[in-house]
Amino acid sequence: MDDLIRMGEQAQQASRQLAQLSTARKNKILKLVAQALRQFKNEIIVENNQDLVNVTGLTDSFIDRLTLDDKRIEQIATGVEQVVTLSDPIGEINKGWKTEDELAITKQRVPLGVIGMIYEARPNVTVDAFALTFKTGNAVILRGGKESLLTNIKLVAVIKKVLRDNDINEHAVQVLHDTAHETANKMMSLTDYIDVLIPRGSARLIKTVVENAKVPVIQTGAGNCHIYVDEFAQAKMAVNIIVNAKTQRPSVCNAAEKIVIHSVVATKILPMIAKALKPFNVELRGDEQARKILPDIKLATEEDWQTEYNDYIMAIKVVDSIDDAINHINKYNTKHSEAIITDNYANSEKFLQQIDAACVYVNASTRFTDGFKFGFGAEIGISTQKLHARGPMGLEELTSTKYLIRGHGQIRK
Amino acid sequence: MDDLIRMGEQAQQASRQLAQLSTARKNKILKLVAQALRQFKNEIIVENNQDLVNVTGLTDSFIDRLTLDDKRIEQIATGVEQVVTLSDPIGEINKGWKTEDELAITKQRVPLGVIGMIYEARPNVTVDAFALTFKTGNAVILRGGKESLLTNIKLVAVIKKVLRDNDINEHAVQVLHDTAHETANKMMSLTDYIDVLIPRGSARLIKTVVENAKVPVIQTGAGNCHIYVDEFAQAKMAVNIIVNAKTQRPSVCNAAEKIVIHSVVATKILPMIAKALKPFNVELRGDEQARKILPDIKLATEEDWQTEYNDYIMAIKVVDSIDDAINHINKYNTKHSEAIITDNYANSEKFLQQIDAACVYVNASTRFTDGFKFGFGAEIGISTQKLHARGPMGLEELTSTKYLIRGHGQIRK
Repeated sequence: MDDLIRMGEQAQQASRQLAQLSTARKNKILKLVAQALRQFKNEIIVENNQDLVNVTGLTDSFIDRLTLDDKRIEQIATGVEQVVTLSDPIGEINKGWKTEDELAITKQRVPLGVIGMIYEARPNVTVDAFALTFKTGNAVILRGGKESLLTNIKLVAVIKKVLRDNDINEHAVQVLHDTAHETANKMMSLTDYIDVLIPRGSARLIKTVVENAKVPVIQTGAGNCHIYVDEFAQAKMAVNIIVNAKTQRPSVCNAAEKIVIHSVVATKILPMIAKALKPFNVELRGDEQARKILPDIKLATEEDWQTEYNDYIMAIKVVDSIDDAINHINKYNTKHSEAIITDNYANSEKFLQQIDAACVYVNASTRFTDGFKFGFGAEIGISTQKLHARGPMGLEELTSTKYLIRGHGQIRK
Repeated sequence: MDDLIRMGEQAQQASRQLAQLSTARKNKILKLVAQALRQFKNEIIVENNQDLVNVTGLTDSFIDRLTLDDKRIEQIATGVEQVVTLSDPIGEINKGWKTEDELAITKQRVPLGVIGMIYEARPNVTVDAFALTFKTGNAVILRGGKESLLTNIKLVAVIKKVLRDNDINEHAVQVLHDTAHETANKMMSLTDYIDVLIPRGSARLIKTVVENAKVPVIQTGAGNCHIYVDEFAQAKMAVNIIVNAKTQRPSVCNAAEKIVIHSVVATKILPMIAKALKPFNVELRGDEQARKILPDIKLATEEDWQTEYNDYIMAIKVVDSIDDAINHINKYNTKHSEAIITDNYANSEKFLQQIDAACVYVNASTRFTDGFKFGFGAEIGISTQKLHARGPMGLEELTSTKYLIRGHGQIRK
């Protein structure tokens, strides 16, 4: 049984040191961690093999995500080196002003403190989470999927050795050894020590964390993304974007799940879309109006409008106005990413302003919602909540701020 | 029994309209609300009197906060008019850039959506919460203390009439009629409809919300504020600031509760402090070293270091270095406001950087931690968490952002 209070105290202690480290020193450590991962790769693979022997009855894709080999470890090490190249948000001054009382206030970017990461059996997340939290001066407590426990313990041991060798408090990173749900629940209640919880993984895992946590959570979420083909859309562009947004990687949260299309262009464009999706074996479903145009498709149900398929399925809603499109999308979307295809200026602006989502696109694929594609150089996840962070999260979203106030003896009257 | 799902749906519906209102229109409504409060003040006072008749066995200060009269209603109306003068953060572009894929991204400030406010029997908060959330384009669901129910219902009715008369969805503001704890708990679980909960009130109320809410909470919190008198402090400045921070308004969260003092200056300055606090009947407690200098004071216990007195009591800790001071403060503070009194540059910088708190002061009273004193023109509360908002919260903290992405047909490769 992990002593969570003790782990929390140790993490908080470590976070004090981390908050004061220079960017150069943090970068040096990250480079050494990348080297150490390469140096100890055989030992890591031995532990990973043991994890793989222990799992039974899981899907191929699960096992694939759990498996480490030379190539994967090289990718992980390279990923750490990429974090070195990112600019360090800590110490940045967001704003500064002088008050009526002549106090000089500056708002400075600081680490969050202690971050709790809860994720599935993906050992790459273990190292990635360390690299991103360390670069931003945070201590991290990791709770990975139980199937990857031995791998995670080894990875963290490799990182800790580098920390110790460089006089950094090794509790900058800690991993839960006990994978019972009870222990995870205790971790989610450590409000005195953990500043933020970040769950990464399936909708179910995230829901569990949101429902059980007392520590503030950054919710990275599900996507039920829509492409709205406006009455003023270029047909070819609409087809291209829908094919891309559905098929380029259907399992991810920024893939499109729904087509909303204006009735004026539906007769022309829906058959083009159906034809273009055919080679990818995308199953189409639709409302009554869509089925008048594409008679072979199944009737979409209320459940369809709500569902994130993450699969080669799409449902089609025909609307008679952009307002109906916006209302439909705002009713069913998960506030992730939504797109309009149009050549009409007023409609593009209306859609951008009235759709309630982290990312709203005009004439582009929803698949661009991504920390790397946005140019952040990293991605902690994509926030679908409105507090703290919304949309793709880079290093800045792992930070907080504090006010520094310089005076000369002022008292309040 | 309130139908919370229905209230949530209605609030969300209203929030769509509010998000699109121009600043001019929002300001017009706020001015009319102020007028209506004055116009209907007698009816409001009748309901308030009924609330006052119903309460029994409560303290004078409780009843004082609950009571409305002509003067109080005028103050509330003036408060609404002050919100009119604040600049509207909605629509502001925080940043914009072009990505490698030639997508033009702008990050725009938008309302949070639906805010839930949970607070005590203070009718002024009802109107204040409406004014601030409305100005920032948010719908609000109010759950005030049960003792103020009739007053709150009347105040909200007055506001709703103005909304209806001006074609604004009246569900922009709603009040829970059912004051059972169960209903409040249901409200705290409305994750599909409420974007953020803001509890305002006692530490106990806030703790209850943090422990029970599934909706994200902005925690406004307790203050266990310290004044550290450095070895290089000006004695007179230290005394002035301590007297101000303790006695100017001892019941509030930014009042100082603890003195930490360097041993080199303790013998000289502690008696000066004790003398200056004497006219205010401040009870001093101290560690063994402090008691050698001030033999009449009580020994401070572990509980003292942890306690926010909100009263005319202060505890004194003598330290032998600034590092000991920083460690003591980081161990016991509530991350609210901390001050150092010093003329030494290196020590001031060390304290500013190493103290973990929302607001860190050099040579000024902690009493300045306040949205108005910071120049925000409003104060929703003082956040002691690190997510989303930290320190005094103004209008900006009632907003979120979204990314608007303009393309010309880009798909992801």
